[in-house]
Amino acid sequence: MVIGAHSYGKSRVRLVQVTRHADRDDLRELTVHIRLEGDFAAAHIHGDNRNILPTDTMKNTVYALAKDHGHEQIEEFGLRLAGHFLTHNPQVSRATVDLTEHPWSRMRPHAFARGGVERRTASVTSAPETAVVTAGIDDLLVLKTRGSAFEGFVEDRYTTLQPAGDRLLATSIQARWTYQHQDLRFGQVWRGARQVLLDTFAEHQSQSVQHTAYAMGEAVLGAFEEIGEIRLSLPNRHCLLVDLAPFGLANNNEVFLPVDEPHGLIEVTVKKGS
Amino acid sequence: MVIGAHSYGKSRVRLVQVTRHADRDDLRELTVHIRLEGDFAAAHIHGDNRNILPTDTMKNTVYALAKDHGHEQIEEFGLRLAGHFLTHNPQVSRATVDLTEHPWSRMRPHAFARGGVERRTASVTSAPETAVVTAGIDDLLVLKTRGSAFEGFVEDRYTTLQPAGDRLLATSIQARWTYQHQDLRFGQVWRGARQVLLDTFAEHQSQSVQHTAYAMGEAVLGAFEEIGEIRLSLPNRHCLLVDLAPFGLANNNEVFLPVDEPHGLIEVTVKKGS
Amino acid sequence: MVIGAHSYGKSRVRLVQVTRHADRDDLRELTVHIRLEGDFAAAHIHGDNRNILPTDTMKNTVYALAKDHGHEQIEEFGLRLAGHFLTHNPQVSRATVDLTEHPWSRMRPHAFARGGVERRTASVTSAPETAVVTAGIDDLLVLKTRGSAFEGFVEDRYTTLQPAGDRLLATSIQARWTYQHQDLRFGQVWRGARQVLLDTFAEHQSQSVQHTAYAMGEAVLGAFEEIGEIRLSLPNRHCLLVDLAPFGLANNNEVFLPVDEPHGLIEVTVKKGS
Amino acid sequence: MVIGAHSYGKSRVRLVQVTRHADRDDLRELTVHIRLEGDFAAAHIHGDNRNILPTDTMKNTVYALAKDHGHEQIEEFGLRLAGHFLTHNPQVSRATVDLTEHPWSRMRPHAFARGGVERRTASVTSAPETAVVTAGIDDLLVLKTRGSAFEGFVEDRYTTLQPAGDRLLATSIQARWTYQHQDLRFGQVWRGARQVLLDTFAEHQSQSVQHTAYAMGEAVLGAFEEIGEIRLSLPNRHCLLVDLAPFGLANNNEVFLPVDEPHGLIEVTVKKGS
Repeated sequence: MVIGAHSYGKSRVRLVQVTRHADRDDLRELTVHIRLEGDFAAAHIHGDNRNILPTDTMKNTVYALAKDHGHEQIEEFGLRLAGHFLTHNPQVSRATVDLTEHPWSRMRPHAFARGGVERRTASVTSAPETAVVTAGIDDLLVLKTRGSAFEGFVEDRYTTLQPAGDRLLATSIQARWTYQHQDLRFGQVWRGARQVLLDTFAEHQSQSVQHTAYAMGEAVLGAFEEIGEIRLSLPNRHCLLVDLAPFGLANNNEVFLPVDEPHGLIEVTVKKGS
Repeated sequence: MVIGAHSYGKSRVRLVQVTRHADRDDLRELTVHIRLEGDFAAAHIHGDNRNILPTDTMKNTVYALAKDHGHEQIEEFGLRLAGHFLTHNPQVSRATVDLTEHPWSRMRPHAFARGGVERRTASVTSAPETAVVTAGIDDLLVLKTRGSAFEGFVEDRYTTLQPAGDRLLATSIQARWTYQHQDLRFGQVWRGARQVLLDTFAEHQSQSVQHTAYAMGEAVLGAFEEIGEIRLSLPNRHCLLVDLAPFGLANNNEVFLPVDEPHGLIEVTVKKGS
Repeated sequence: MVIGAHSYGKSRVRLVQVTRHADRDDLRELTVHIRLEGDFAAAHIHGDNRNILPTDTMKNTVYALAKDHGHEQIEEFGLRLAGHFLTHNPQVSRATVDLTEHPWSRMRPHAFARGGVERRTASVTSAPETAVVTAGIDDLLVLKTRGSAFEGFVEDRYTTLQPAGDRLLATSIQARWTYQHQDLRFGQVWRGARQVLLDTFAEHQSQSVQHTAYAMGEAVLGAFEEIGEIRLSLPNRHCLLVDLAPFGLANNNEVFLPVDEPHGLIEVTVKKGS
Repeated sequence: MVIGAHSYGKSRVRLVQVTRHADRDDLRELTVHIRLEGDFAAAHIHGDNRNILPTDTMKNTVYALAKDHGHEQIEEFGLRLAGHFLTHNPQVSRATVDLTEHPWSRMRPHAFARGGVERRTASVTSAPETAVVTAGIDDLLVLKTRGSAFEGFVEDRYTTLQPAGDRLLATSIQARWTYQHQDLRFGQVWRGARQVLLDTFAEHQSQSVQHTAYAMGEAVLGAFEEIGEIRLSLPNRHCLLVDLAPFGLANNNEVFLPVDEPHGLIEVTVKKGS
């Protein structure tokens, strides 16, 4: 028997960071996940912990580095954390830091309200000579009432779905895009990419979730030279037309039953290719 | 043995309502809960279902009435539903309809994005001669970085908490207020009450969650003659100051650990009294 | 304006208790919720905390009392906690302690596996001269494939449900029963009541969830003189028969779609009467 | 721009299957996820759905095949489903079917209670000439009160954790093992592998979660020639020793605070090597 891929780390490290200014405070809420790969076989096989940096120390490191750097864009803070673990732990060959930012919107100079269910994400993977930065969005829920069809699909003996020329389209956008370099304004590009995703979803004449997913990816790549690749994962949040005929009523695309399960799931990567 | 309080109904009836206009669509997403009380002892004791309107029929009724009325304010739609069950079922002595509206914000005339985690609620309880309407908010998450203290409390042998003259205050507002009459613009008052809650939270010099809770309730009652009573349920979403001293760093109210459990829970009713 | 009902406390206090023996360890996992009512108006209205025992101290008290008493039956530990808060805080008029026990089953003298999703509950409400003890169960999921019908119900213009002489019946039992005195073996009675609930669910010829709910309550009251009243809250976890006719197949009550929403909810109290 | 990896499918297809016998019924509850890879570029790029089997049809297929085969071991039913999609859809190059079985335990010939929080899983990935079957377990929660240490680890400037010679060890086992062939009794091997995991967890003298994870994997590989590789993902469900010293009490490893976040996460693959 041999040991295969192995890693360890700390998940769900939560941080609220307040940056104090004369006239206002800034607020940041993060959840951080750290994962280290490297030479840990002796711990697994022999119970020898001499190469093991405790996950409790990883958590402490997040808080200690946050003191001076917690206000940074999450991509920058992730690069800093991953770099720290790599630099100070020669037994580590790769450090991955995933960060999720929970949105707050300002009400007053010192008061805030939660901004929405969506979350900004960043993932940094650092090895001795390289660092890959991926940014993204989780749970950006959108719905359109026009401009969506699904027709001309394969029909077999188990098909009961009717083609629809005009249906509701709802999804919860999960996007991940990878930067070609790290010399950029992460916050500005993130906000721009988010807007392109929303604009494309809203305006695309959709023949399917697949069709819209690709269009969203293509639009982001077209708008930002910094982005080399984007992956979209789009659940189809079905809104089923309710049959009102038994009650003598017509349902002209007005009354729908939204269901969480089952749901379609469409995933696609679009990249700048040759 | 005797039968005591009993009721039955349908929970988690979900509805997406699209109201079509020439230049735009309006979108509404609701979850409805229905509960009937009345003369159902024979069903319980003898298995005699002659007085039982199936919960499946309650669900159908929501969709059928939504066809023409699903665009109404949720208080109005709740009154309509509760009235329907009461009018058509003489065996029912009281009908309660709880409605939750999930917020969507418009991006385009026919496209929408989810508006936040907070939800608008209404609860209607109708009996043959009366109807009580309660409106409210769930999960309106707020945080302030200044203007909150907690000092001068009881100390006993199990007290380890230090008094704090300046702490973070975070809570997830749950509010329920009852209208004194139903001749009012429900949407407008709801938005107004929400704003008063936010303003008071942000500006109050807080000596405790209790202190702020009462101030929030008092402000809403003072601003709206239509509201006779308000109940606030405020979890204390503790943000614990992280001890950075072991790392040779000072933490000047900058780095916090937010925790979900355990949490304080403060509940108070404020009412117009005599 | 006047202050109405108000209370405060600590929720989600979690405890793992290990009781060490020569030949084995015993394990207990609890979640505790504490709620105090009393003379707290000055805190609400004036920000005067002199009557406020911090919720952090409540949490500490749970752990301190657990040291010597955490192995007690949860009803006893709840009585102890509620009594402590009442005795040491003259400003408190009523203390409520809700306890949830998460089941573990023994694998070895010192090793355990989680026992199930169901949870044992106790709720103690103590005032200076009285204490009420309520025991119960949450999320005891059961299903029967025979012996359940639903027929002869009210039909109106919105009814589409077909009567069923033989259907699946599934529910997630939530039960709460109140003891007439506290001089009893809480663990033994709890296990007995749980078994009566399961036996009755399994063997009852059900005409509806209402019918079975009442039978379950009646059986528990009949079996235990210590129990004066029981409340059952039974969601109808619908298992919908899948229509296989479009595929040329008959579905003889074999293939079902279980749905979480919407669901019926049946609630009834059965009590020993006069 | 070019299209990269892409797939689509149906998630959260739920099934309750009753197999009727003369003297008893058998019950099975599953959740199924289907994912197809293949030639779908035209749908993405051009909105051409001629190669798209609707996810609604995938759902129907699960129910139709369940009629005669829903009683099979989940690995067999997964092979059947994946094979179906591959055989009837030449545009599909790979079909993945993930199945989760929710445990029920028999109370009576026709009545059942939910068996626990843990779930049995199977994942089948079929391509025209090959099929890979992976079985596993989710959320098998275990805890041991003796036989676990964590000492001799790396200490740096951010380390505050104290070495522990005797600590609680709790985790929620997620295991996935891959079969070297499919000519085996899936249910029997699954139950055997589960037992080996439990036995090893309980009896291992643990120097770390890493140490126990590897031992668990090694034991399963040693016990079953059919299994070529196993992957374990073990969150460290920390139980923190509560400091009772402020209350004048000693805590001899008796009173613990279990926390869900943050948590360590240890992952390792063990395989039969050369």
